[in-house]
Amino acid sequence: MPAHAMNLVTIICESLAREAVAELLAEAGARGYTVFEVAGAGAHGERTAEIAEYGNVQFEVIVPPAVCEKLMARLEAEYLPRYLMVAYETDIRVRRGAKF
Amino acid sequence: MPAHAMNLVTIICESLAREAVAELLAEAGARGYTVFEVAGAGAHGERTAEIAEYGNVQFEVIVPPAVCEKLMARLEAEYLPRYLMVAYETDIRVRRGAKF
Amino acid sequence: MPAHAMNLVTIICESLAREAVAELLAEAGARGYTVFEVAGAGAHGERTAEIAEYGNVQFEVIVPPAVCEKLMARLEAEYLPRYLMVAYETDIRVRRGAKF
Repeated sequence: MPAHAMNLVTIICESLAREAVAELLAEAGARGYTVFEVAGAGAHGERTAEIAEYGNVQFEVIVPPAVCEKLMARLEAEYLPRYLMVAYETDIRVRRGAKF
Repeated sequence: MPAHAMNLVTIICESLAREAVAELLAEAGARGYTVFEVAGAGAHGERTAEIAEYGNVQFEVIVPPAVCEKLMARLEAEYLPRYLMVAYETDIRVRRGAKF
Repeated sequence: MPAHAMNLVTIICESLAREAVAELLAEAGARGYTVFEVAGAGAHGERTAEIAEYGNVQFEVIVPPAVCEKLMARLEAEYLPRYLMVAYETDIRVRRGAKF
């Protein structure tokens, strides 16, 4: 199989947004994703005064460009205003097996 | 030292493929890799009916473009047909220390 | 909000460098970062004879191109010669919420 030009969407969010993001990914047409826990540190929003690291989760999902656009649009309209969250996209070349 | 144009190969696979992938990376000439556990979710293959997240592992390895090609060719021929697995490559610019 | 062209800097280092890297990121002007533990494997430096995986940490930080340059310059001059460490940059497009 040839490599497919796709987008990797990475979403880093506070843990309380985990279920909401998982639902969004399913609704947006993502076929699957991975998620893992990370420590986050930073000065943003109400947490400006905190230096300590705190628990975040990081989602990574591979999507075709058209799905990426729709996903990012919904993230910006509905999620970024409500949660501590950052999302970014990366250009990747994907190989998948028959089972995946 | 200048930045080197390299490829990052990311392999997400079911845990039972972990040792096989580690061996492949060594054979393909990778000088090192990182691996960490992730939760995966998705509808693919025999697991279509499952919504629950399950344990996967994610490998990341930095390789020159020529090694990337060989690695991807072996993944497609030997691994993707046998395991729940997805692999993708990203263009990166690398700085290494003398010790690495 | 439109997508912003940014750089993702990934730093994989031995655990003992964790605090030093976190300080560097703060000094370099990064607004936040994530960090998580990974298993590393490889043949480099004094650890050539080891095949077993060992504990590393992986930092990921989103920075504008100008900050990326300064951060990489300091990493190369001060950190790469002293620690088991590799750093790489990736081009990404970022969406941030008002809170982040």
